[in-house]
Amino acid sequence: MTTHPYARLPQRLDDCLVLDQGDPLRALSEQFTLPEGIIYLDGNSLGALPRAAVARLNDAVTRQWGQGLIRSWNEAGWFELSQRVGDRIARLIGAGAGEVLAVDGTSINLYKVLCAALDLASARREGPLTILSEGGNFPTDLYIAEGACRERGAALRCVEASGLDAALGGGVDVVMLTHVNYRTGAMHDMAAVTRRAQAAGALVIWDLAHSAGAVPVDLHAANADFAVGCGYKYLNGGPGAPGFVWVHPRHANHALQPLSGWWGHAAPFAFVPGYRPAPGILRYQCGSQPILSLIALDEGVNTVLAAEPLGGIAALRAKSLALTELFIQRVEPLLATHGFGLATPREPAARGSQVSLTRSEGAYEIIQALIARGVIGDFRAGDGGAHPDILRFGFTPLYVGFADVWRAADHLQAVIENGEWRAPQFALRRAVT
Amino acid sequence: MTTHPYARLPQRLDDCLVLDQGDPLRALSEQFTLPEGIIYLDGNSLGALPRAAVARLNDAVTRQWGQGLIRSWNEAGWFELSQRVGDRIARLIGAGAGEVLAVDGTSINLYKVLCAALDLASARREGPLTILSEGGNFPTDLYIAEGACRERGAALRCVEASGLDAALGGGVDVVMLTHVNYRTGAMHDMAAVTRRAQAAGALVIWDLAHSAGAVPVDLHAANADFAVGCGYKYLNGGPGAPGFVWVHPRHANHALQPLSGWWGHAAPFAFVPGYRPAPGILRYQCGSQPILSLIALDEGVNTVLAAEPLGGIAALRAKSLALTELFIQRVEPLLATHGFGLATPREPAARGSQVSLTRSEGAYEIIQALIARGVIGDFRAGDGGAHPDILRFGFTPLYVGFADVWRAADHLQAVIENGEWRAPQFALRRAVT
Repeated sequence: MTTHPYARLPQRLDDCLVLDQGDPLRALSEQFTLPEGIIYLDGNSLGALPRAAVARLNDAVTRQWGQGLIRSWNEAGWFELSQRVGDRIARLIGAGAGEVLAVDGTSINLYKVLCAALDLASARREGPLTILSEGGNFPTDLYIAEGACRERGAALRCVEASGLDAALGGGVDVVMLTHVNYRTGAMHDMAAVTRRAQAAGALVIWDLAHSAGAVPVDLHAANADFAVGCGYKYLNGGPGAPGFVWVHPRHANHALQPLSGWWGHAAPFAFVPGYRPAPGILRYQCGSQPILSLIALDEGVNTVLAAEPLGGIAALRAKSLALTELFIQRVEPLLATHGFGLATPREPAARGSQVSLTRSEGAYEIIQALIARGVIGDFRAGDGGAHPDILRFGFTPLYVGFADVWRAADHLQAVIENGEWRAPQFALRRAVT
Repeated sequence: MTTHPYARLPQRLDDCLVLDQGDPLRALSEQFTLPEGIIYLDGNSLGALPRAAVARLNDAVTRQWGQGLIRSWNEAGWFELSQRVGDRIARLIGAGAGEVLAVDGTSINLYKVLCAALDLASARREGPLTILSEGGNFPTDLYIAEGACRERGAALRCVEASGLDAALGGGVDVVMLTHVNYRTGAMHDMAAVTRRAQAAGALVIWDLAHSAGAVPVDLHAANADFAVGCGYKYLNGGPGAPGFVWVHPRHANHALQPLSGWWGHAAPFAFVPGYRPAPGILRYQCGSQPILSLIALDEGVNTVLAAEPLGGIAALRAKSLALTELFIQRVEPLLATHGFGLATPREPAARGSQVSLTRSEGAYEIIQALIARGVIGDFRAGDGGAHPDILRFGFTPLYVGFADVWRAADHLQAVIENGEWRAPQFALRRAVT
């Protein structure tokens, strides 16, 4: 599926430099400031800084806040900002205008849609409800589902991805999945899974944390029920940026979410007694949003939308697949001889925009040794069982080039072959993000 | 209670200028940038911009995010920022270090502590639980309580402030009150109300949205059970800044909150299956926080802590009472002859840092006419019943002076006596914040 202009993978560093030079998406990287000498393969954890965010935030602070003060809620459009940014994110995930809010965090949004989905499900049938998810899902998704289950007397059932179809036969009310797995980069076929789950009578919630801005997503084509996602990964929204939430219009007016704060009220500034939910997605608002962080997210989303005239997400996806393909090809020798495993699917359609390696020993230390060489990936601890420690490398096609990939693989090989990762300074601390 | 050095209220504008000149807190106003020609009496809605926030945010964006990238979670201390800012807020509200988090929004934090309080209450007695609040409470507090009640099958009962004691006799499990009323500025006696509510068997939650940074609060002395508050009012944290949450240590390890995301897990980066709550207040975290907005809040809190060598909150309170006293004195003629009412208690101990006027006609238009003259207060719609429309004026002693108060009252008088507020341009729009 690696298509023109990346159809032929480079075989030497020089080829990479030529490919980068002629890359039709190359101008997009000018949108970012990245430190000199750094190869940044962690945009799946925190996206790089958009240049435009610097001036935009300075203006938001000094003019909008400092001079405009309270008037800026109206005059600078703070009041509708969650909707405006949401409308821009909608274009990246196959949602309609007015269907998405950039608001709160991914975990909190997940709680809202889980409770709303359980409400809808309880109207469908009597008795305790079941949420089905993957054991290897991002832990916070499972923790939040535990919280919602505890509130509602529902049960959370987790299986491996391969067991999802079988589990659907057992009476499932809500399926909650992350589209691209945070550890392995494995990607579900959203349309197929949604179809099968709905055929089994379940509502389907997708977490797009590792998808939005990185891989094609079409929520309407997949007929999904709910979705949430993250602003600070491939959307480049800055540290801890607000997340987003989408609810299919067929449900939006027919469920309540429990965080029923004033911003989700039909008339938030009427100050009337009694909660009356706003129509549509607006009822998924709760309180005032962190405007400065939301403005940074707006600029981050703009960096992805800037690809639209160049082919949009499809073009980004073609480059992303070529980048990950090249990295897999280049680390192949390490897989054979140095105890690494490949956690990411080799099948392009089944992977997101990252490559994850496993190693029973030294995964954390190797990442630290790479960082010391200026190659930033990250470490994700395993659970000592089915899920081993992971070395994770994210490839954001907006600002990662083919020469970066080539050199990163060279650095990894050197770290292993020189035994650099055994140096004591790399062993002391555990990564926290 | 207006004490030295504000014991004698000024009787002329010149007296005000002299008082401002000699004000021992005067240097604190240098911490802020305010637009030329503006008298800002809306710091109870959005605090002014701290000068230090400009450089701090620019550094956070360009160096911490742009250069440090993912490493800044450790190296720039983003990971512990909610705790660090929480520890600073603790000093302003009589809480201990390690007991407060600056996190999420006020409404979301209220949902967390309401659910935790209902958990504790349900361990005390069988049967459906009751939350007691004030009908005139900030609507979002009541809306959120409705949401929590709906989840738990509990009941929300609202009475007027004067009826709280009587209502306690009827079997109340949780009392949820805002310390300083957003409309009237009336302040509860926190210690007395807490004592009576606890004697009746209830747990007590205080919303400090209009208290923190403005009036003395001592949660431990009052023996409160839970508290939440807002970062963007008297704490000057910027638009939509994160709020805060406090749980008395006697409860912190004995209740769960339902937004059980990874940041509240005992080992958030171990990525283990199964939610295990972190000890103490840390379990009230959910997901990643909007770091840029949190950094602005840090600077905002610093502007209040800067008063510590000058007498701290007690000194700010003394000035605040003198400011509000002067404003009440100066608008007295309007009360008698122009249809205004005073919604704020005249008794100093019973009011916060604002003065609210009622008027059956034109409250919105008068606020607009004042804004056109450079005096920024705000309008709060009434409910057409017990709670009339309000003209609200907040007095932040950090940056409001006595001459500001004098002039604001002159402007109000001119707006009324010249009939300026009847000009058509002031009638068109409704304020949204």
